[in-house]
Amino acid sequence: MKGKQLNETHITAVRVIDLRFPTSRSHIGSDAVNKDPDYSAAYCILETNTGLEGHGLTFTLGRGNDLVVQAVRYLSRYVVNRSLDSITSDLRGFARQLTDDTQFRWLGPEKGVIHLATGAILNAVWDLYARVEGKPLWKLLAEMEPRELVKAIDFRYIDDALNEQEALDLLTERRDCQKTRLALLERQGYPAYTTSVGWFGYSEEKIRRLAREALAEGWTHFKLKVGGEPADDLRRGHIIREEIGWTNKMMVDANQKWGVLEAIERTRQLAELKPWWMEEPTSPDDILGHARIRHEVPQVRIATGEHVHNRIMFKQMLQAGAIDVLQLDSCRVAGVNENLAILLMAAKFNVPVCPHAGGVGLCEYVQHLSAFDYLSVSTSLEDRVIEFVDHLHEHFLTPVHIRQGHYLLPMEPGYSIQIKQDSLTQFAYPDGEIWQEAFEEARSNGRA
Amino acid sequence: MKGKQLNETHITAVRVIDLRFPTSRSHIGSDAVNKDPDYSAAYCILETNTGLEGHGLTFTLGRGNDLVVQAVRYLSRYVVNRSLDSITSDLRGFARQLTDDTQFRWLGPEKGVIHLATGAILNAVWDLYARVEGKPLWKLLAEMEPRELVKAIDFRYIDDALNEQEALDLLTERRDCQKTRLALLERQGYPAYTTSVGWFGYSEEKIRRLAREALAEGWTHFKLKVGGEPADDLRRGHIIREEIGWTNKMMVDANQKWGVLEAIERTRQLAELKPWWMEEPTSPDDILGHARIRHEVPQVRIATGEHVHNRIMFKQMLQAGAIDVLQLDSCRVAGVNENLAILLMAAKFNVPVCPHAGGVGLCEYVQHLSAFDYLSVSTSLEDRVIEFVDHLHEHFLTPVHIRQGHYLLPMEPGYSIQIKQDSLTQFAYPDGEIWQEAFEEARSNGRA
Repeated sequence: MKGKQLNETHITAVRVIDLRFPTSRSHIGSDAVNKDPDYSAAYCILETNTGLEGHGLTFTLGRGNDLVVQAVRYLSRYVVNRSLDSITSDLRGFARQLTDDTQFRWLGPEKGVIHLATGAILNAVWDLYARVEGKPLWKLLAEMEPRELVKAIDFRYIDDALNEQEALDLLTERRDCQKTRLALLERQGYPAYTTSVGWFGYSEEKIRRLAREALAEGWTHFKLKVGGEPADDLRRGHIIREEIGWTNKMMVDANQKWGVLEAIERTRQLAELKPWWMEEPTSPDDILGHARIRHEVPQVRIATGEHVHNRIMFKQMLQAGAIDVLQLDSCRVAGVNENLAILLMAAKFNVPVCPHAGGVGLCEYVQHLSAFDYLSVSTSLEDRVIEFVDHLHEHFLTPVHIRQGHYLLPMEPGYSIQIKQDSLTQFAYPDGEIWQEAFEEARSNGRA
Repeated sequence: MKGKQLNETHITAVRVIDLRFPTSRSHIGSDAVNKDPDYSAAYCILETNTGLEGHGLTFTLGRGNDLVVQAVRYLSRYVVNRSLDSITSDLRGFARQLTDDTQFRWLGPEKGVIHLATGAILNAVWDLYARVEGKPLWKLLAEMEPRELVKAIDFRYIDDALNEQEALDLLTERRDCQKTRLALLERQGYPAYTTSVGWFGYSEEKIRRLAREALAEGWTHFKLKVGGEPADDLRRGHIIREEIGWTNKMMVDANQKWGVLEAIERTRQLAELKPWWMEEPTSPDDILGHARIRHEVPQVRIATGEHVHNRIMFKQMLQAGAIDVLQLDSCRVAGVNENLAILLMAAKFNVPVCPHAGGVGLCEYVQHLSAFDYLSVSTSLEDRVIEFVDHLHEHFLTPVHIRQGHYLLPMEPGYSIQIKQDSLTQFAYPDGEIWQEAFEEARSNGRA
């Protein structure tokens, strides 16, 4: 089903929804820092004259989601009443309109609430673009001419590490054998790892049971949340090792719990678990800190990225030799556009990208980015896995498909992010049924 | 007038005001990136049982100020219904409550909208604290015991550069001769420079006239906004040099206009103006970029900071040898608490602090921080000047006093940030009189 032409599609309105899932009730998503997340999204729908819609979201942890919703509403002015081709013909210029608003910019620039909002809108535009073209996003990207792809990237502030010509050359050189790589993805999917076994709030019994179950499902890479008492972390790690053995991979994730010096000490201790990587050992802002940890604990690979707020920070992580694994986030940065820049920089510096996922819709998003990365940028699956977390997928119209620890290639047009109408209604905050019930229950308990 | 006791003061409510001044009409504050700012503030008032109030604000450029207002309202939960001494006895713990909210934190951490909001609240608490103690903030800080001061600082993520003991030692060692330094400040004030002569939107005639007038008023340091066409920048620079000569100091400020490579080239060109510093040559996130610019253009000193979003970024700017001048911002970071950390790190690395000011209330704020810096931390005025911009001071109850290019020491209790009730009413957005008139005018023009 080839879609309408880009120039016939006009964006007529943007609907923005404050969507929150009460995940904190079951400790889903708990870690050493984020103890009680209510997985949420600032969700936006681009409405058009043709009936097609573009869907986009930015993931948050609950409180404050309203700020991102409000920022998305504000930025909507740059997309309403435009033809889609006026945007797709200048994707870089469009992204800059969002990031360069002369007054709004002060609140970042290119970070925090306003950048999260920018990600939601840009991703919705790409979703619409892919739907109009009748392709899944990964395919749209993989089939775009290199000179079109680089026109979507803002090289400002990164051209000392990667300029437009270098990006163009890299993309052009690596087109070779794309069909072979595509055949591989179609056959086996993209390798993944599971985070669902080792949340911080889970008991040791639960971790053991979940590790055993995940192993039986074909998983080979398992992540454990650490950052508690050292002995607890090690004991929990050994429980997983007992279940998965030493050939399968285990990663540990401290979610920014430590300062640099403590991170060095704790990472050295955790080395006895032979972790495949140490994730977020310290502040995501600390480029030099990560470089020092990596240098002082060479036996453990260092990973970060889910809180790294833009391409300029990732550029420095690469320039400083601070990370072994780059964990881009699909919506913390400015959507597909900025992630193209990040994928290309990672390829130039030869650092594998293993995207952050989980939350709401992040798995749905990043499967496209990683497929494109393999097809057109890195051209390698070595040391590359996508995070997988097994919750909230039931709310998506076209959820991810996992088979034997691999993401199967999504084939529906778009960016796979559309949430079912029922879920959008029920989980809308604060008016949705789920939340009204929760408030009623809280009132009752208050009276009891 | 010694105030009430801390434990008798209870914070009963927080009022938050969206305050905006229509400065864009006269090109005040215009530069190469921020072309049309409406200087604004998310303004909060801590109300207490004793009638004393704590005032705090965060500066923004207009649109999006509502986001910060909303974030301040959210964070108010951590301050309402508390005794002041429950906060002042654990200022570090209090700041962490604001920055570590388990769900809100995702929107940063410690950056952007939520961090700006944190700054407003923390500064309001310090204002109230100083009023209760009956002292101007600089004096409250200068008279606090070193062990009390360090308890206000969150050393998390910076202890690889400066730990609590080092900070304590530094503060203790430098208490000597504080009275002599105080006498100097009382006599001559703290040196300043003016940014009012060289806004980007001003004509060459206006720049020449303003430079001449400022020189006559006793100014010795003048800043010019650059980042236009190279020839224009140089011509405008030479106009100022013609007026102020080559003994007086001129600084140039590109407001993040350039990438690293362009910044190197442009800074080399601007060297012919013998700038005292080159400010914001590139992205405020680019620690390694600033280090490279500084290394490759050693003849020009490099400055940045007004957009550097927290102590972790400043730590790295210092560790990387990226800057010659550190321009902290009083409310982009988490208020007085985080600025204490930044002042101490700068002192350890022997980098002078020349605070960012202007906007709304930044001059009123930073005069206290710089006075404290001189009295207790750096103990030096060498290469140190506070920015001064001459607008909007008429809205403050106790505005800054400038004499012969120096800030005179403020003597009223508090942090000097209280805005007159009339101004709070008139400039409230969107309901204030000034804005209602502007909307009416816009409607009339629309009809014309």
